[in-house]
Amino acid sequence: MKFLIASDSFKGSLTSLQVGNIMSQAIMEEIPDAHVRILPMADGGEGTVDAVISAGRADPIRVPVTGPDGTQTISYYGKLHGHWPHPAAVVEIANICGLTMVDEGQRDPLIVSSRGLGDMLKALLDQGIRHAVIGLGGSACNDGGMGMLAALGVQFYDERGQKLYGCGADLLSVASVNWSQLDSRIMECELIIASDVTNPLAGPSGATYIFGPQKGLLPEMMEPLDQAMARYGRLLEVGNGRNSNHSLLLSPGSGAAGGLGFALQSIGGRVVPGAEIIADLTGLKSAIRESDWVLTGEGRSDYQTLYGKLPSYVSTLAAESGKPVVLISGSHGEGIESLYSHFTGCFASVNKPATLDHCLQEAENLLLQCTRNVVRLIQSSRKIG
Amino acid sequence: MKFLIASDSFKGSLTSLQVGNIMSQAIMEEIPDAHVRILPMADGGEGTVDAVISAGRADPIRVPVTGPDGTQTISYYGKLHGHWPHPAAVVEIANICGLTMVDEGQRDPLIVSSRGLGDMLKALLDQGIRHAVIGLGGSACNDGGMGMLAALGVQFYDERGQKLYGCGADLLSVASVNWSQLDSRIMECELIIASDVTNPLAGPSGATYIFGPQKGLLPEMMEPLDQAMARYGRLLEVGNGRNSNHSLLLSPGSGAAGGLGFALQSIGGRVVPGAEIIADLTGLKSAIRESDWVLTGEGRSDYQTLYGKLPSYVSTLAAESGKPVVLISGSHGEGIESLYSHFTGCFASVNKPATLDHCLQEAENLLLQCTRNVVRLIQSSRKIG
Repeated sequence: MKFLIASDSFKGSLTSLQVGNIMSQAIMEEIPDAHVRILPMADGGEGTVDAVISAGRADPIRVPVTGPDGTQTISYYGKLHGHWPHPAAVVEIANICGLTMVDEGQRDPLIVSSRGLGDMLKALLDQGIRHAVIGLGGSACNDGGMGMLAALGVQFYDERGQKLYGCGADLLSVASVNWSQLDSRIMECELIIASDVTNPLAGPSGATYIFGPQKGLLPEMMEPLDQAMARYGRLLEVGNGRNSNHSLLLSPGSGAAGGLGFALQSIGGRVVPGAEIIADLTGLKSAIRESDWVLTGEGRSDYQTLYGKLPSYVSTLAAESGKPVVLISGSHGEGIESLYSHFTGCFASVNKPATLDHCLQEAENLLLQCTRNVVRLIQSSRKIG
Repeated sequence: MKFLIASDSFKGSLTSLQVGNIMSQAIMEEIPDAHVRILPMADGGEGTVDAVISAGRADPIRVPVTGPDGTQTISYYGKLHGHWPHPAAVVEIANICGLTMVDEGQRDPLIVSSRGLGDMLKALLDQGIRHAVIGLGGSACNDGGMGMLAALGVQFYDERGQKLYGCGADLLSVASVNWSQLDSRIMECELIIASDVTNPLAGPSGATYIFGPQKGLLPEMMEPLDQAMARYGRLLEVGNGRNSNHSLLLSPGSGAAGGLGFALQSIGGRVVPGAEIIADLTGLKSAIRESDWVLTGEGRSDYQTLYGKLPSYVSTLAAESGKPVVLISGSHGEGIESLYSHFTGCFASVNKPATLDHCLQEAENLLLQCTRNVVRLIQSSRKIG
């Protein structure tokens, strides 16, 4: 029996590779002669680059970049093997300016800059790369992409003509922008923005209000920063020669990664659902075709899973190939029944009344046990016929 | 596909009949043409009489008895159809002097008497019944069976020669016992005590210390009542002509139902594992033989499930018939892995981090959803083969 494991990470507890290894262990314990292939998945967030590397479709290339706190750090991108127009790269904001790279007490989007992504893109340009997939999930920044643009040569000034570095707080004082020094090679690039965020740049459902709090933004800064973000957005659009008919301010995904979605679109980027592009880069479709059973998972499943989350896309591909697909999640939320028509079975690995903390600590064993029982039921049902 | 549902109750949330109906609904939603048979199970506790009646093996016969608070109440036994030496009855302490018959704030084993069981046995004798299975789980009493014996004619006195009624507090003052007025017809009876309790009458693992607290016994009463229980036991044994070689004080099951296990053995009763006898009375074995799949369950499963709990016995019978059996529990506890070799799959219906209260409130929907997914996985696996 051939199993394919194509799971997302369990946020807060297990990476998608860990999930793959645990599910694989469960299968091998129950069916020692099973064939198991692990294809760790991601949807543009943390683990996106690793997913493509794990699938054998890219090599890691280390690049020095500006970290979230402004100091130099080492990140890496995945240099794709020919699958894409060559040469091409897969990049993720989560390993350049990721929320998990900043200690919880230290998080402050006023200080954090997205410059590191600009550094990374410059490195790609220097290495002759003109095609990049950029995963935008899991960022610590909320600077409207000002830092990234600044690293690529765009100049931002305050009212007194002082040049700005490009962090969240600089949104409050930016008064003018000069595009003339933008590294022009970036305009030759195909920039694919992998994101499942559809929020606009600013406003009540914009980057600041929706994602600011989890990045450490204080409540009293919400309104001034959101207004600054909107003003910054208009400033960029005017400088860029866009009129209101082609405005990117409200374009879905502009609010991704604290406005990086907006800034990247301003330099020609195109937003694509994260799960689909990662599935494409990792060769998920053919891996499903070669399997008998597909196992997928995520930390928490609910009706939102159907809105572009990784397991939902796995189920779509599995259905196309006529393969059964089982969803094993950490836990279930509202509207889980709406998933039943998409999955052969939906199981939650939590196994008793407990706190979230306890479940996260026990995540590994819970997933192992739940998967073992799913596999044994599959195995038994086949035998009985 | 033929499913047999033979589940225990989910204590604190669902009766075994409710579990059966919910699992059945789940099956029918997924496989509309499935054949489903529900055989609600019990292990001697609450629902034991109902289980045999539900299986079509007995009719309910109403009997007025003394309730746990000393007032008259109506209970019922199951009059068996011929399967057993005829006429025979199945009785349970839980519907005569059950813990759930007393409001939680009102529970006090010093006040509660087991007289109701004596009333019930007298009614059986009057109706010519000489064979009875007596389920001892779920009782509110801790009177050493003094109340039951008193109702059957045994006389208990305190030091001043005052006749005692037979409640928990009377254990503290009983000084002598007179067996001469015991209804002698009881000695012609086959009394089968259905229990999975193996505790002795008194001592650190006896009735008072182990089961007293859940019956509302105050901590400061534990020691005096336990010592009184031991003294009462010796008193009964002496009056009964038993010597220490044949003492029932330490006999496994003497501590069941607050010492009713001891008192019933004193008048010839024999302890039998509850799950086995109920399975026998309900015709579980042949029902399993006629099914393709067996579903069983209980509120909480852990390593103790293997020590005589109902699902464990169901799995034994299923194995004898070569049928797959799936365990669906409310939740899992320590050592759940030890059950894997006994069940085709072990699933917990809890589906997210939550409090016990929440899980109990949601028990019905959680069980429905979990069973639906188990059934869909079975169904899918069969199709794929």
